[in-house]
Amino acid sequence: PSSKLPDIGTSIFTVMSALANEQQAINLSQGFPDFNCPEPLIDLVGRYMREGFNQYAPMAGVPKLRENISIKTEKMYGCRPDPDTEVTVTSGATEALNAAITAVVKPGDEVVILEPCYDAYAPVIRLCGGVPVYVSLALPDFSVDWDQVKRRISSRTRSIIINTPHNPTGAVMTKQDMDKLANLIEGTDILVISDEVYEHMVFDGQQHYSVLQHPQLRKRSFVISSFGKTYHTTGWKVGYAVAPPVLTTELRKMHQFITFSTPTPLQMALATFMEEETHYRNLPDFYQAKRDFFNEQLKGSRFELTPSAGTYFQLAKYDKISEEYDLDFAKRITREAGVAAIPVSAFYHDKTDHKHLRFCFAKSEDTLQAAAAKLVQL
Amino acid sequence: PSSKLPDIGTSIFTVMSALANEQQAINLSQGFPDFNCPEPLIDLVGRYMREGFNQYAPMAGVPKLRENISIKTEKMYGCRPDPDTEVTVTSGATEALNAAITAVVKPGDEVVILEPCYDAYAPVIRLCGGVPVYVSLALPDFSVDWDQVKRRISSRTRSIIINTPHNPTGAVMTKQDMDKLANLIEGTDILVISDEVYEHMVFDGQQHYSVLQHPQLRKRSFVISSFGKTYHTTGWKVGYAVAPPVLTTELRKMHQFITFSTPTPLQMALATFMEEETHYRNLPDFYQAKRDFFNEQLKGSRFELTPSAGTYFQLAKYDKISEEYDLDFAKRITREAGVAAIPVSAFYHDKTDHKHLRFCFAKSEDTLQAAAAKLVQL
Ligand SMILES: CSCCC(=O)C(=O)O
Ligand SMILES: CSCCC(=O)C(=O)O
Repeated sequence: PSSKLPDIGTSIFTVMSALANEQQAINLSQGFPDFNCPEPLIDLVGRYMREGFNQYAPMAGVPKLRENISIKTEKMYGCRPDPDTEVTVTSGATEALNAAITAVVKPGDEVVILEPCYDAYAPVIRLCGGVPVYVSLALPDFSVDWDQVKRRISSRTRSIIINTPHNPTGAVMTKQDMDKLANLIEGTDILVISDEVYEHMVFDGQQHYSVLQHPQLRKRSFVISSFGKTYHTTGWKVGYAVAPPVLTTELRKMHQFITFSTPTPLQMALATFMEEETHYRNLPDFYQAKRDFFNEQLKGSRFELTPSAGTYFQLAKYDKISEEYDLDFAKRITREAGVAAIPVSAFYHDKTDHKHLRFCFAKSEDTLQAAAAKLVQL
Repeated sequence: PSSKLPDIGTSIFTVMSALANEQQAINLSQGFPDFNCPEPLIDLVGRYMREGFNQYAPMAGVPKLRENISIKTEKMYGCRPDPDTEVTVTSGATEALNAAITAVVKPGDEVVILEPCYDAYAPVIRLCGGVPVYVSLALPDFSVDWDQVKRRISSRTRSIIINTPHNPTGAVMTKQDMDKLANLIEGTDILVISDEVYEHMVFDGQQHYSVLQHPQLRKRSFVISSFGKTYHTTGWKVGYAVAPPVLTTELRKMHQFITFSTPTPLQMALATFMEEETHYRNLPDFYQAKRDFFNEQLKGSRFELTPSAGTYFQLAKYDKISEEYDLDFAKRITREAGVAAIPVSAFYHDKTDHKHLRFCFAKSEDTLQAAAAKLVQL
């Protein structure tokens, strides 16, 4: 019998990371740090494991973690979600996205997604029998053309997925964007799924503007975030979703049957560690320094760079170096220059190529310097 | 807009555990140990975290863990699945079940499930647009009436879900059961999803008979297991699925968009720890002693017990004590006798009540003794 997702092959992250390993190339493709998470966070895991926190967490998440997420949300965004009815801990932001989409999308429903975008949105929509409706971000700055979004909305539109700061482009939405979105869906039943996993990586003095700050949007949105991005623990797979009680109820029904719960000792350790705000307060400076260092090192190269406004990704236009299709170019430079990156076409459903590679700069200065030294020679 | 799972409320495990906590009752309801996992396993987590294993695991699972699952499978069941194409690590057996069902069930497909059964099967089938077809296990021993199963198979049957050792009844399938199942589906496209998470808890000298031992079944089955049950780490949420390459390909497409991957340090620690076979080799004796201890302590009670053949659950018939509906009885004895159990009606889609409670005996002797002392007074 036939596949339910016939066109899904190996993900670009797996392809490029595998090629990087095979070629012993510097891996700036898949988004993860090459430095370790904070040592005290590791100590906390050991402590809680020894204390016996190794059995099922409550389905919605460890109470102290939900409480601390709520407190942090108030400090950052001035809105305090109720931990019992509005915060759900999930096994990574990927699970939260899956649960949010699966909770609301029924056969025939349309979901607007803005391209380029993370490769998990469309397949989950399709598995629910929904129809992804694609709107391209406007070049050259990858801003949202809200008029175009408006034209793609129909009576069947169930949801819009947004992502700010934006993977892969680093673009950051403003309050004006959110106002336009709010106007657009006013008087409809359309729900927003807001992927904000890079919330603590916004640069040059700009602030992340969260859907949670926008009362009109907040009451009809799932807002998704990630501990992996913030605490250098992408491999721990702890994320969360904040949504009003009626939406949280539906999301938890999905979560209950997707993973049921998320590792208890990891939740306990993060709950304690996040009480100290320094780590996430320092994150914009920490990553801005890396972005600046990487871009500085690339000064002499033939790549064209506009400094990333957020996330730990930097786009680079390579049309002065080659006319190749971006996937071919990415593979070739992995082999020949020893640096792996992600071709941005992988984030378009029709694999449109704008001659952009995405480099992850969540790396030590040594790594970034070594990579740049190779890239300037192209 | 309406819920996609309107009839799903709070799960019985959450309800009874919450009531147990509120009443400070002894919690023999939700299935988890009240003792800790092995200390060396905790040490391994710390070691791997310090070594930097905190970023994304490969999507299919850490290679060493998949390799060791394959080796263990050969030792136990004489069949060696290929780690690259047949073994997938998931965020708990719940995710593996979700991924297997979601991979194969399309709108209109029927899936046969044997009641009583774990409460996650039917909702996931329904979310895929499938139709659960219920067959009741035969009282009093909860064996499978394969003739009845045969009568419920139609041209729309896509899959049969089996579970051995069986939650909540402890029933264990034999080779004869598997032969009958194999005959039943011979010449059809029906796939088997075999939930074997309690594989290392089979008592009284009987052996777990895995679908993996049955060549005819193995080639069309997903076999699902759990590290949580075997290593006293239900809260770590690490499980896996073994299936032939064509089925694994489809399962991984789902896994990629459900959680993408499973916590790296937990996978690494389990991979190393499982190389020592003693732990799981000793598990039948370890849990049989607990079962016997608990049942011995209940000798003077008015509960009727047939020793559980597998799992860490013991059914108890209470019709000599009360005529109440099992959920009411379970709640009342939590409040009045201070012992929480699971009413078996929760495992039937129509909440049929056969006057059975399920007690979890994965507890210290002190806990079991204290619980039994209260139960004998009923
Ligand atoms: C889950 S693998 C992909 C990691 C990531 O978010 C990215 O590289 O875009
Ligand atoms: C995931 S909570 C349920 C645990 C369990 O398997 C059971 O108690 O039956």
